[in-house]
Amino acid sequence: MKNTFESRRRFLLTAGTAAIWIPTAVRGYSSTELRSLEAEQLKSANISKWELDTPALCVDLDALEANLTMMQQTVTSNGIASRPHAKTHKCPAIARLQIEGGSVGICTAKVSEAEAMFEHGVNEILLTTTNVSPSKITRAMNLRKWCTGFIQATDSSENARSLSEAAQASGIIADVVVDIDPGMHRTGISPGQPALELAQLVDQLPGLHLRGILCYDGGSQHVKGFSKRKAQTLERLAAAGETYGLMQRSGLNTEIFSGGGTGSYNIDHETPGFTDVQAGSYVFMDAQYLAIGGANDPELYSDFRPSLTILTTVLNDQYDGRVTTDAGAKACTINQPWPIVKGETGMQYRSGSDEFGTILYDDPSRSYRVNDKLEVIASHCDPVVNLYDQMYAVRGDRVEAIWRVEARGMSS
Amino acid sequence: MKNTFESRRRFLLTAGTAAIWIPTAVRGYSSTELRSLEAEQLKSANISKWELDTPALCVDLDALEANLTMMQQTVTSNGIASRPHAKTHKCPAIARLQIEGGSVGICTAKVSEAEAMFEHGVNEILLTTTNVSPSKITRAMNLRKWCTGFIQATDSSENARSLSEAAQASGIIADVVVDIDPGMHRTGISPGQPALELAQLVDQLPGLHLRGILCYDGGSQHVKGFSKRKAQTLERLAAAGETYGLMQRSGLNTEIFSGGGTGSYNIDHETPGFTDVQAGSYVFMDAQYLAIGGANDPELYSDFRPSLTILTTVLNDQYDGRVTTDAGAKACTINQPWPIVKGETGMQYRSGSDEFGTILYDDPSRSYRVNDKLEVIASHCDPVVNLYDQMYAVRGDRVEAIWRVEARGMSS
Repeated sequence: MKNTFESRRRFLLTAGTAAIWIPTAVRGYSSTELRSLEAEQLKSANISKWELDTPALCVDLDALEANLTMMQQTVTSNGIASRPHAKTHKCPAIARLQIEGGSVGICTAKVSEAEAMFEHGVNEILLTTTNVSPSKITRAMNLRKWCTGFIQATDSSENARSLSEAAQASGIIADVVVDIDPGMHRTGISPGQPALELAQLVDQLPGLHLRGILCYDGGSQHVKGFSKRKAQTLERLAAAGETYGLMQRSGLNTEIFSGGGTGSYNIDHETPGFTDVQAGSYVFMDAQYLAIGGANDPELYSDFRPSLTILTTVLNDQYDGRVTTDAGAKACTINQPWPIVKGETGMQYRSGSDEFGTILYDDPSRSYRVNDKLEVIASHCDPVVNLYDQMYAVRGDRVEAIWRVEARGMSS
Repeated sequence: MKNTFESRRRFLLTAGTAAIWIPTAVRGYSSTELRSLEAEQLKSANISKWELDTPALCVDLDALEANLTMMQQTVTSNGIASRPHAKTHKCPAIARLQIEGGSVGICTAKVSEAEAMFEHGVNEILLTTTNVSPSKITRAMNLRKWCTGFIQATDSSENARSLSEAAQASGIIADVVVDIDPGMHRTGISPGQPALELAQLVDQLPGLHLRGILCYDGGSQHVKGFSKRKAQTLERLAAAGETYGLMQRSGLNTEIFSGGGTGSYNIDHETPGFTDVQAGSYVFMDAQYLAIGGANDPELYSDFRPSLTILTTVLNDQYDGRVTTDAGAKACTINQPWPIVKGETGMQYRSGSDEFGTILYDDPSRSYRVNDKLEVIASHCDPVVNLYDQMYAVRGDRVEAIWRVEARGMSS
């Protein structure tokens, strides 16, 4: 036993020193190794993404920056703002880029995400989900105590009263928006009179400060074809728009009318009163959004560039018409359309197996060989990012930074 | 700016102290809060699983222990051994229970998983995937230097030569098994002459020590109906069995003939020479395996008990025939069959949405109310576990331990 213990101790001691752990002559940098480098060291090390240990999650900085600019320019020229949803990237480094680029704040889906974002430098946070348990309500109101830019959604009078009590117990007045159901019946209160009455209650409760409304129509974001998507988006946002009018005429605060997403970012401003787009996926794009079509191309949604990829290595090439890679469902999820092999045609990627990816060749003359690396575009960016502790920020082929996915796994 | 910085500093300071962070009067324990308790404190705290913050991953200890016993008794009475696959649980605490219960070791799918298991007290590890990149080969051979019970799979002569060189460079003789393809063409070398020649090469290379073969037939594990599954399992393992015979007659070491899984654990011993079952999912069971049927029940695979559940809270009950919960795809994956609401009939759970689960009532008289908690059986245990940093080990309703999923996210 002593020998085993001693072995483990020595293994752990050596595991930290790169010279023993991964000889530089070999390369194939692991995340542990790279995280130990300072940003300046990382730049001078001049590491190519192709030297990374795989599977590795990468974000292309040129594409990401183009996406941030495209969103900001569009919403600005349409007279509204962006309040991007951080549930997509879960990454404070990207949230800070969004805010520096002109966004009025970010959204989060869970209180734990909001906590992680605030802990890492983000101050303007709209929590789009109603917290219902006493502990979560207390956590949110405690967060609001320190994070003055925190705004909480609510969708019932009982919840609003609980929020107000918790806010008073924390010695604060909490900013609140009323979450309105666009017809999905998933979250939110019904538009019209129910929403108006809730807004009036929020306005009157001593611990709360009404800021406006929120209406996210997830069901319209992936409607294929721009004109069909536009028609559905506007139709389903109409009732929230009428509620906005009711609230205004009642003298309530309507400074926020937030909603929309990557599929409707250039449509939402047509609803009167609408103030800001909560788009998330636009930073990365993914195979699902590419397929919905845009205003100029019915087959390809090209407003934003795919920036999120998974690097993978071929493990087996012994069988005709296919190879096996190291990136399966645990690296890519099983979302469809399947990941797209970047820069290639004539082949299909499958990530249905937990541990292994498969490439099927349409053209049997194609061949990847064992140890070849390739890059796939993520199928559905949100759950893919949620599998990784870090993403490699890459310019061209060079790794410029390692960004921690600080809110990874924060589903509570 | 100074005020914001000061706020963040104070928020971070208070976040660690439970009295401020989550008042005990409120309960709803977060993982951070519970992890700070020592095991003995945790027991005396007498915390019910229903007090946990959600979504929360739970493992029922009575069911888990029954599953471990069932597996060990069956393989023992069939004259073989168990070498459970840790890719399922990624949790050293469970690996240690398996080995204490009589397993000859564990398997891992990735070198990073093997490293995590060794770092947390597991010494007998079979890495079932061929490592192909120089860096991973070096890491594996470095691990073998300290972990004397480490065994590496290989599936090509080029790879065997690389392994031998890396082993010699590390000053060790590495234990190796030849991975044989059962016909899935995913990993492994073809059975018969190709596999025999590779085994002979491994036997001769100066840095390697041949231990035997591995043949995992993932494609047979979920075949519905016991007799059909049995027929396919035995048919597809036959070629590996013949290779085993060829190797034996050539005087090669065949002490290991590893393979099989949860669906074939009581079938594999019928292949001559077979030594140990690599089952993973049996510890947890899941909705996918429950549906394959067993030897005694064509509709329900009841050999093992479902032990892995996700606790979730109802967020919205305002709409007829359905409620929304806080456990969607990021907490449950989108694997199907969908999660099963434990102890309930007349309702369907859907986790297709990233952030939210949906319960649809078959019988409209049913109703969960906002803030009600419920428990769902995991759809497909491996990728679900891979979403969580810890699981709560529960006996009855009481939380007995918090187990870290140390190899969570280790897909490389």
